[in-house]
Amino acid sequence: MRMVDIIEKKREGHFLSVEEINFVIQGYVQGKIPDYQVSAWLMAIFFQGMTDQESAALTKAMLESGDKIDLSKISGIKVDKHSTGGVGDKTTLILGPLVAACGAKVAKLSGRGLGHTGGTLDKLESIDGCRINLTEEEFINQVNQIGIAVAGQTGEIVPADKLLYALRDVTGTVPSIPLIASSIMSKKLASGADVICLDVKIGDGAFMKTIEDARELSRIMVSIGESFGKNVTAFITDMDQPLGHAIGNRLEVKEAIETLSGNGPEDLVELCTDIASHMIYYAKQAPTLEAAKAMALEKLNNGEALAKFNEFITAQGGALPELSHFIEVKEIYPFKAKKAGFVKQIKALNIGLTSMKLGGGRETKEDVIDPMVGVLLQKKIGEKVSIGDTLAFVYANHPVDSDILSTLEDAFFIVEYQVDKPKIILEVIS
Amino acid sequence: MRMVDIIEKKREGHFLSVEEINFVIQGYVQGKIPDYQVSAWLMAIFFQGMTDQESAALTKAMLESGDKIDLSKISGIKVDKHSTGGVGDKTTLILGPLVAACGAKVAKLSGRGLGHTGGTLDKLESIDGCRINLTEEEFINQVNQIGIAVAGQTGEIVPADKLLYALRDVTGTVPSIPLIASSIMSKKLASGADVICLDVKIGDGAFMKTIEDARELSRIMVSIGESFGKNVTAFITDMDQPLGHAIGNRLEVKEAIETLSGNGPEDLVELCTDIASHMIYYAKQAPTLEAAKAMALEKLNNGEALAKFNEFITAQGGALPELSHFIEVKEIYPFKAKKAGFVKQIKALNIGLTSMKLGGGRETKEDVIDPMVGVLLQKKIGEKVSIGDTLAFVYANHPVDSDILSTLEDAFFIVEYQVDKPKIILEVIS
Repeated sequence: MRMVDIIEKKREGHFLSVEEINFVIQGYVQGKIPDYQVSAWLMAIFFQGMTDQESAALTKAMLESGDKIDLSKISGIKVDKHSTGGVGDKTTLILGPLVAACGAKVAKLSGRGLGHTGGTLDKLESIDGCRINLTEEEFINQVNQIGIAVAGQTGEIVPADKLLYALRDVTGTVPSIPLIASSIMSKKLASGADVICLDVKIGDGAFMKTIEDARELSRIMVSIGESFGKNVTAFITDMDQPLGHAIGNRLEVKEAIETLSGNGPEDLVELCTDIASHMIYYAKQAPTLEAAKAMALEKLNNGEALAKFNEFITAQGGALPELSHFIEVKEIYPFKAKKAGFVKQIKALNIGLTSMKLGGGRETKEDVIDPMVGVLLQKKIGEKVSIGDTLAFVYANHPVDSDILSTLEDAFFIVEYQVDKPKIILEVIS
Repeated sequence: MRMVDIIEKKREGHFLSVEEINFVIQGYVQGKIPDYQVSAWLMAIFFQGMTDQESAALTKAMLESGDKIDLSKISGIKVDKHSTGGVGDKTTLILGPLVAACGAKVAKLSGRGLGHTGGTLDKLESIDGCRINLTEEEFINQVNQIGIAVAGQTGEIVPADKLLYALRDVTGTVPSIPLIASSIMSKKLASGADVICLDVKIGDGAFMKTIEDARELSRIMVSIGESFGKNVTAFITDMDQPLGHAIGNRLEVKEAIETLSGNGPEDLVELCTDIASHMIYYAKQAPTLEAAKAMALEKLNNGEALAKFNEFITAQGGALPELSHFIEVKEIYPFKAKKAGFVKQIKALNIGLTSMKLGGGRETKEDVIDPMVGVLLQKKIGEKVSIGDTLAFVYANHPVDSDILSTLEDAFFIVEYQVDKPKIILEVIS
């Protein structure tokens, strides 16, 4: 087999065999196939696409390039969720304890944030003492004992994806739906869960811009999951505004705790309880999806979800936050409306960038995060606004400069006519 | 400027500016842009194409990556020709002396053969003593003195094309018409001629398989030439059989000499005199194309073209061949027809491969050529064949094995119905 023949085959729109895909991925990971051939192949895939069979074969080849987490020592049905990345997305902090409180087993490997999107690990680390570098033994024991653990990925999981993603990032080959699907699914499958819920976000602040793309990505990921005998459900969700009100590490932890206490914002509660209902149902902890959703709502309202969160944070070494002193910044700047009307859109990208510029996110991998800063939205889509109303509070430890203000200014789109509240979950694909 | 943005721009089908194209080519030649970004860019060009303006800008950027031959010290109008590569293509050996005998100035840089196509330099070097490594001074003086010189390219001409071609070869990005056009034209323009005739071959033994592709390639090359103020004419010519009868280095030199003596095969004479007429006319040595063609035919028949060939070979140190002893091989194997009928096709690719397998061509750059061996066709398309007729003589210095015979067997396609002789020149584009 020669790599140039495989490139040409894909370039001409033909299907690649399992052997050909294995040849590429193994050869690349072993350093036998150079970057310049792989990047040409990736660009050919961008244009010619991949069938579901090819996507599954690519996922399998990537999965087998590294270690797989063996969750067989954990009793019961293991559930996992993945978000394609959003702004204000603290769902893992809520869903994890919530479904664990309902009896599902949550053994979750998570990532850090980069750019305008936050990462679950950064949010956990904003809690004093909270460790995310668990050993495999600690990780498995904790799930067996309390039903939930969240840790950082080790270096050995899906090395092919790390290599490919780094190459795609600099060769204009990121936005290929089968490549995105294989990248996500290889990591999810390596993490070993039985039930996987995928939160595919669309809109300005998300990677997928159209419902058609999101549908196709969802469909391929469900198909890949099926070919591995996993139960996969994809939720296409709205990112035309940030999720909930809080953006920034401690601000989001606080909002997660409020949500776990039954006091969460409507969109966030709806998203979490809907995804939770699938995880609970497929983990066989409720007889129907409806019963599972009712169970989730009950746990949010009766304190059991919050108790599970406290147990989880304590188990990972974290000191439970006293919310009244949890967030302390030099300035809380009220960002006010200059125009009256109704909120039509809140560009999640701009809000994410604002948080990053305040120090709450990383521009490069080396940046150190300020856990205190961020944005707390006071108005969401559909709400009425008068001139001078506070649209958002900016939590800052440095003066709020004109760059930040203009980024925020561009985030809010206010119109004169009435606007409906958007649905948070647009479609469910399984 | 960032390379990844330029890749994405082309990927999305947008036009690249002159500055962007210069950025890529300069950056690549200077080692600032890595192979893996350039190969992704080339694949994006394969799919999205390039406008004539982009192709001209790419040609200019490549041209300016290296030295240009300064032919200003040569008086008169300099003419050049280029063939996209064929089997049995000895036109340079004929056209050069022919148009020089008609008063045009031929300052030609030529290449070696690889694979199933032969190279002019290999054919010249098959003549004892003939040098092709002329210094620039020798080259220019010789053209001024006798009107013709043919030499090998130096290492400094269009280094960007060398780099890009090597990368395209291993990344499945060779067959992109704007890339082929820019590659050919950058080298032709660097060689400094005023009048350029391009022989674009189509058919089984050629790089272009369809008349549409050949037309598009011709159109772009003429357009690029125009943007540099050059007179460019493209001839789309047939390669459904080898050109003339002889394939192999000395066999082709001998056929060239016969043609220059007025005894050439019909297709070869027609091709050479038609292209010559354009070179002679645009070099202002004849008042019309018709007069130029008549002049060319006259020089073939009155001995002046042959005399110029002898002058040319002598000037480059070659000993004029005595044709009766010029080709001496261990075996001349008659390859005979097993079927009666009419010759419908003679696959040029197979004949070229046969010559290569006999030792007449290179499989790799390091192979040493046997100048004596090759194939001498006895029948061409349209000719009647009886069982046992010799279709071709195989000139061999090693036993003619079954591999060679089966390659030849597959070359000849004989049918029962009468077949017309094909036209050699299909279209002329200028």
